[in-house]
Amino acid sequence: MTAQSRIAPKSLHSRIMSAEDAAALVTNGATVGMSGFTGSGYPKAVPLALAARIEEEHAAGNPFRIRIWSGASTGPELDGALAKADGIDFRLPYNSDPIAREKINAGEMNYFDMHLSMVAPMAWQGFLGPLDTAVIEVSGITPEGDLIPSSSVGNNKTWLDCAEKIILEVNAWQSEALDGMHDIYYGTALPPNRVPIPLVRPDDRIGQSHFRVDPDKIVAIVETDTPDRNAPFAKPDAVALAIAGHLLEFLTHELKMGRMPRELLPLQSGVGNVTNAVLAGLLDSPFENMTAFTEVIQDGMLDMLDAGKLRMASATAFSLSPEAAERFNADAHRYRDKLILRPQEISNHPELVRRLGCVAMNGLIEADIYGNVNSTHVMGSKIQNGIGGSGDFARNAAVSIFMTPSTAKGGAISAIVPMASHVDHINQDVQVIVTEQGLADLRGLDPKQKAEIIIERCAHPAYRDALRDYYERAKKSSFGGHAPHDLREALSWHQRFIDTGSMK
Amino acid sequence: MTAQSRIAPKSLHSRIMSAEDAAALVTNGATVGMSGFTGSGYPKAVPLALAARIEEEHAAGNPFRIRIWSGASTGPELDGALAKADGIDFRLPYNSDPIAREKINAGEMNYFDMHLSMVAPMAWQGFLGPLDTAVIEVSGITPEGDLIPSSSVGNNKTWLDCAEKIILEVNAWQSEALDGMHDIYYGTALPPNRVPIPLVRPDDRIGQSHFRVDPDKIVAIVETDTPDRNAPFAKPDAVALAIAGHLLEFLTHELKMGRMPRELLPLQSGVGNVTNAVLAGLLDSPFENMTAFTEVIQDGMLDMLDAGKLRMASATAFSLSPEAAERFNADAHRYRDKLILRPQEISNHPELVRRLGCVAMNGLIEADIYGNVNSTHVMGSKIQNGIGGSGDFARNAAVSIFMTPSTAKGGAISAIVPMASHVDHINQDVQVIVTEQGLADLRGLDPKQKAEIIIERCAHPAYRDALRDYYERAKKSSFGGHAPHDLREALSWHQRFIDTGSMK
Repeated sequence: MTAQSRIAPKSLHSRIMSAEDAAALVTNGATVGMSGFTGSGYPKAVPLALAARIEEEHAAGNPFRIRIWSGASTGPELDGALAKADGIDFRLPYNSDPIAREKINAGEMNYFDMHLSMVAPMAWQGFLGPLDTAVIEVSGITPEGDLIPSSSVGNNKTWLDCAEKIILEVNAWQSEALDGMHDIYYGTALPPNRVPIPLVRPDDRIGQSHFRVDPDKIVAIVETDTPDRNAPFAKPDAVALAIAGHLLEFLTHELKMGRMPRELLPLQSGVGNVTNAVLAGLLDSPFENMTAFTEVIQDGMLDMLDAGKLRMASATAFSLSPEAAERFNADAHRYRDKLILRPQEISNHPELVRRLGCVAMNGLIEADIYGNVNSTHVMGSKIQNGIGGSGDFARNAAVSIFMTPSTAKGGAISAIVPMASHVDHINQDVQVIVTEQGLADLRGLDPKQKAEIIIERCAHPAYRDALRDYYERAKKSSFGGHAPHDLREALSWHQRFIDTGSMK
Repeated sequence: MTAQSRIAPKSLHSRIMSAEDAAALVTNGATVGMSGFTGSGYPKAVPLALAARIEEEHAAGNPFRIRIWSGASTGPELDGALAKADGIDFRLPYNSDPIAREKINAGEMNYFDMHLSMVAPMAWQGFLGPLDTAVIEVSGITPEGDLIPSSSVGNNKTWLDCAEKIILEVNAWQSEALDGMHDIYYGTALPPNRVPIPLVRPDDRIGQSHFRVDPDKIVAIVETDTPDRNAPFAKPDAVALAIAGHLLEFLTHELKMGRMPRELLPLQSGVGNVTNAVLAGLLDSPFENMTAFTEVIQDGMLDMLDAGKLRMASATAFSLSPEAAERFNADAHRYRDKLILRPQEISNHPELVRRLGCVAMNGLIEADIYGNVNSTHVMGSKIQNGIGGSGDFARNAAVSIFMTPSTAKGGAISAIVPMASHVDHINQDVQVIVTEQGLADLRGLDPKQKAEIIIERCAHPAYRDALRDYYERAKKSSFGGHAPHDLREALSWHQRFIDTGSMK
C-alpha cells in the first residue's frame, strides 16, 4: 500500500511533491497549524524538511522562525527538530518535547499554555492572529476530496477551516481501518451563535467521518509511511499499584454508597504507569460496561475492551505503546466500532464533561496541604509540559481525582508541600488526592480538615513530621486562620531543593 | 397586604406559627438549607429566633450548633446572628458576613467554599450528608400550593426537593409583581442522566414560575414583612471611573476589530462601585440592545434598562441599594418582563456561560505579574468572602476580565504582587486585567510578556520600580525561566505587610 493509492482524486495528484518542496512553501514568520496530539497523527516529513531549511537560512545569516499551533504534544520530528533549529518563535498549547521545553525555560521560545478545549475557539476569536498554513497528517483522501483523519483529530478541523493554505501528509503507515472511526462535529460556532452540543452519551456520534476541505487551499501533498511516536509501555511498579489499589477501593466504596452506578461514570485519565495500574485494576473491579470520555486511548483501554469491561471509549487521539499500536493496527476492524476520535474542542468540552460527569484522574507535580495542585511548574518557575486538558476535566468532573507518588527524585522532592509553588487546579477542583500512602477524600471539608488528612494519608512518612510541624506553627503565626500559612516558610521547601538538591 | 393573604391554600393556615415556634423545630446538629443570595431573599425571622434559642441553650450549658447550606451570602439576621451565637458548625458556600468571617478565620467555624454552580449538584451527589430542614423565604403560596419565589432563587429548588422538613417564611415586603419573573428549571439531574440545558439566549425561559413543594413536608409557615439587606449604592469614585474608562475603550476596540457584536455579549459582573462605573459607562457606549447573564441584578442594570440600552437581564438574585429596591418595587410590573431570576445552578452553569460567551467582569484581591489572581485570601490565609461564581464565569467566558484599584489600604497594599499568595483564577482564566492605571490584554502572551505589560500598565507607579526590580532579579536567579520567580522573595511583600502594615 503506497500513500499515493490513498489519494483518490486524480485532480490532486499534481500537488504531490517532496517534503522539501512543501516546506519551501512556508515563509519566515508564518503561523502554522500542525496536526498532532500526544505523539500521534502529527506531520512527520514536512517539519523535518522545514527544520533543515531553517538551519540553512540561519547558517546563511537569515532570520527564519515560525509560530506553531498544534493539538497538544507531537513528536521529535516536529517540536524537537524545529526547536533544535531555533525555528519556533511561539507555540501553543501543551508541549512535552525535551528540546522545546529547554528553549521555553531558557526564555528562547514563547509558549502560550492554555486549556485544550479553548484552542479552537480562541483561534476563531481572532486575537491570536491569522493562520497562514496548516500542515496536517491524514490517512487518506476520499474520491469526493474529503480527508480521512489519522490517529489523532486534535484541532485539525479548525486548522483546515482557518488556514490560508494547506499542506497534507498522507501517511500509509496509518491503518486504513481508521476510516469511519472519527466523529467530526461541525456544529460549533462563536457566541452569540452557539447551540447545545447534542451529545448525551460517550458513544453518541454527532458529526461526520471525514474533514471537509477547500481543494483550492491545498498547496502540497506529501506521501509518508512513518510510525507515530509511540512511547514504550511503562509497566506499573509497586508505587503505581498501591495508588491504583487505594483508588479502586474509593470507587468501590462510592458504588456501595450509591454515588456511582455499576457502569461507573465515563473515565478520563492521563497517561503513564499510574494510569496503567488503575486501568488494570478496573479489570478486576465490580464495575461493568464502563465507558471512557477522555483525551487519549491508551494501552490499558484496549485490554479493558478485550475483556469486555469497557464498552467503548471516546477520545481525540491514540497514545499507545509500539506493541499496542501494532496490536491495534493488526486488529483495527474489531476495535473500530468501540472507539471514537473527536476534535479536542469536543473531547474536552466543559459542557460535555459536566453533562457526562466524568471520573477525572490526572497526575500532578505537587499538591499543598490545602489541596491546591501544581501540574505544570517545577519549583514554581520551570514548566514541565503544560496544563493540557486537566483543567477542562478536573473542574467539570463528577469526581476529580489527582494521583501521584508521594515523592520524586528518589525521595528528594515531596509531592505534598506546605504551599504549592504554582497553582493549576484550585482546591475547589481537587476532590480526591491519592498517593501510594493513601487516599484523601477532600469533599465537603474546611481547609484545616483537608490539611490534616492530606498530611496523614498522602504525605510520605519521611516528610510527614515536617509538614505537621509547618502546619502547627502556621496555625500560630498566620495572618488569617482559614488556611493558615507562614509566608516566611511557605516556599522554603522548594528553595531548599534549589539550594541543596533536596527538600529534606 | 398581610403575609397571610399571600398564603392561598386554607389547608396550610394551620401551619402558620411564630418564628420562635418554627425555630424550635430545628434540632442540634441539623443541616439546614437556607434561602438567600447576596442579601436578598433570605429568611429574616426564623434564623433570628433560632439564634436566640441557641444562646439560651448555650447559657444552659447545652451544645447547639447547626450546619448551614445557603445560596451565597445572606443578611445579618441569618449569618450574623447565628455566627454571633456561635451556632454555626459548618457553612457553605460564599459568606460576606463580618461576624461569620471572623469566626471562620479564627478557626471556630468550618467553611467549605465552592463554585456556586456546584452547590446543588454536590448536595444531590450525597457526600455532604442529608439535608434535614429547609428554611426558605417566598413571596407567596398559590392556590395550587406552589411557592412564589422572592427576590432570590439561589438553591431553593434543591433545598425544597432535598429537605426532610420545610419551614417557609412568607414575606409581605416582597413585591407581588415578582410573580411570573422567575424561571425554575426542573430538568437537571445527576450523571449519567444529564441532558443539554435548552437555553440558547439569555432571555429564554426553560422552566416554570413557581417552586413545586410536597405540602406534607411543610412543618411551619412564618409571616414576615421585612426588607432585604440592601447595601447602599457606592457612587463611583475617580479610580472606579478610570477603570471603567479603560475597560470601555477595550470593549469598543473589540467591537471595531469584529471580535464583539454590536449587542456585545451577555454581561456578567460582580457588585460594587467599579461595576457601577462600568455599567454607567455602557450607557454612553456604542453598544445597543445588550443583555446580561449574571448572578445579580444591580442598580446600574435598572438604569440601563430604563435607557433602553439593556434589553434584558438574567440572574439568580437582586442586589439593589435601598433606593433602587424601592424604585423596583414601585414599578415592578414595568421591569418584570425584562428580568428573569433562575436557580444558581443555571445562572452560573458552565455549559451556559460557555455557550452564551459572557463578558465576565470580576474583582480581585491581588494579581501577580504572570496573571494569576487571588480573589479570596488576604495575605494568603485570611478568607475575605469566597470564590462565589467568579470561577464559573471566568473560565467559561468569551472574555474574562478582572478589575481592581491598583492599591488598597491607602496605598499600603499593591494589587499587583510578585506572586499571588493564593490562587483562585489561574492565568489561563485571566485574559484582561484592568486598574485605574491601565489595561493589560494578556491573551496569547507568554508569561514574561504578561509580566511586562502587567507591571507597566496595571501596577501603581509607587510599586512599579519594585516590581521591575523583582522581575529582573527573578529572571537571573530563577530555577526555571518560563515564569521566573525568586522563591526567597516571592511572598516577601505580603510578609512585609504583615510585619509593618505596608508592602512598601
